[in-house]
Amino acid sequence: MTATGVRDDSPNLLLIGIGPGDPKQITIEAIEAMREADVFFVLDKGEHKHTLLALRREICERYIPEGGYRFVEIPDPPRDRHPDDYTAEVRAWHDGRLAKIEEAFAAELADGQVGAFLVWGDPALYDSTLRIVEQIAEAGRFPVRYRVIPAVSSISALAAAHRILLNRIGEPIHITTGRRLLLDRGGDTNQVVMLDSGCSFLEVAEPDDHIWWGAYLGTDEEILICGTVAEVGQLIKVTREEARIRIGWILDVYLLRKPEYR
Amino acid sequence: MTATGVRDDSPNLLLIGIGPGDPKQITIEAIEAMREADVFFVLDKGEHKHTLLALRREICERYIPEGGYRFVEIPDPPRDRHPDDYTAEVRAWHDGRLAKIEEAFAAELADGQVGAFLVWGDPALYDSTLRIVEQIAEAGRFPVRYRVIPAVSSISALAAAHRILLNRIGEPIHITTGRRLLLDRGGDTNQVVMLDSGCSFLEVAEPDDHIWWGAYLGTDEEILICGTVAEVGQLIKVTREEARIRIGWILDVYLLRKPEYR
Repeated sequence: MTATGVRDDSPNLLLIGIGPGDPKQITIEAIEAMREADVFFVLDKGEHKHTLLALRREICERYIPEGGYRFVEIPDPPRDRHPDDYTAEVRAWHDGRLAKIEEAFAAELADGQVGAFLVWGDPALYDSTLRIVEQIAEAGRFPVRYRVIPAVSSISALAAAHRILLNRIGEPIHITTGRRLLLDRGGDTNQVVMLDSGCSFLEVAEPDDHIWWGAYLGTDEEILICGTVAEVGQLIKVTREEARIRIGWILDVYLLRKPEYR
Repeated sequence: MTATGVRDDSPNLLLIGIGPGDPKQITIEAIEAMREADVFFVLDKGEHKHTLLALRREICERYIPEGGYRFVEIPDPPRDRHPDDYTAEVRAWHDGRLAKIEEAFAAELADGQVGAFLVWGDPALYDSTLRIVEQIAEAGRFPVRYRVIPAVSSISALAAAHRILLNRIGEPIHITTGRRLLLDRGGDTNQVVMLDSGCSFLEVAEPDDHIWWGAYLGTDEEILICGTVAEVGQLIKVTREEARIRIGWILDVYLLRKPEYR
């Protein structure tokens, strides 16, 4: 992607991956990038907005003790969570965000300044921040340079917490969403499933498929469950629901593995 | 997996992911874990053995300036790189390693001491260190506790270096090896391919598939190429070969994407 109208002193945007939740699972590169930032833009939305904002502030206070930065929240357009046309709805929602974010950049970033987004997990996996920044850079109404700082993904954190590899020797690994797992009927041998609020594995998996599930990875609330779907499938469902209500939000991910490669 | 015969003062093993190559792409958690270690065990083999050992030493010197640790190289049994039965050969090779590693643990680790492996990339992805430690813990001849510290994977580093997401909205991501790509004829929409010394994409991909390739990610030698397979496929092949000969070793990874989801 080529940025349009960019000069050497155009504002710089940093998309900084901060890992799945544990402030210690942040890289030295990410901390150095955070320390360059004049402004942290925040796009959080929904039920876990306040918790995530608080966690971001805590991370900044820990790694930039001398301050010298500010937080700017960018309000988010409302979103239909059960649209008829999923892709179209996501696109429309992104367009709405785009306009508001461009406005915020123009208001907050002078030439030579650095804005940053702290992205949960890794910026390359099921996160829309990079798409938004790409689109703004391409549109060229607000000339901007940008850089991406990779991070520990929630997938790596899940595997480490369970002390497992994501595959058996030589096998592939399929990363998908709960929604896509239902559509594709999930036949892959090793499937990592993200964004599955409906516990789709209960509909798609065989009873002897093995599941390794984790929620709130790397935080004090971390929960880990593993076993066959027959053994722990319902336990995961009720644990997930109980935690979501008690804590007010949930982020979880799981690995589903078939007994044999196919 | 349950460790056998473990007591509270049994030696502790840390499997520490150190990311794909840039010493700055290491987490605070990994650095803290490194500082706990009395002994760093090294299993490097093959053409890039000396370079990788030197990089590990450099990382330790950077993050543990006061010293107080030692490196122990564990020699590796020879390996048939083109066996008739791939899985069986890998298993036999692992068994040979196992015996040598158990010996080294027994010789080097007293009760209460901490041994560590510095694992390139993320320990959950196509690395055998965790499998070896699991097997030693299960066998119980050398009682040991162990912990895994996740890291930035070469996949996340590839995406960040190219400033891309691994998928388009809602699409799955398939992680595989060059060998498996050839066997499965690689029909997935977004395929991340690791360990592909034979440029299998030249046999499997369509001319208008898009490829984002990266080698020596995060190091001074980093090379990035992207375009359609028709445009850059041969360029990647010759660039890869030239670099491998010039530098003496190569580690690379790529994302292959079909124009439309299927």
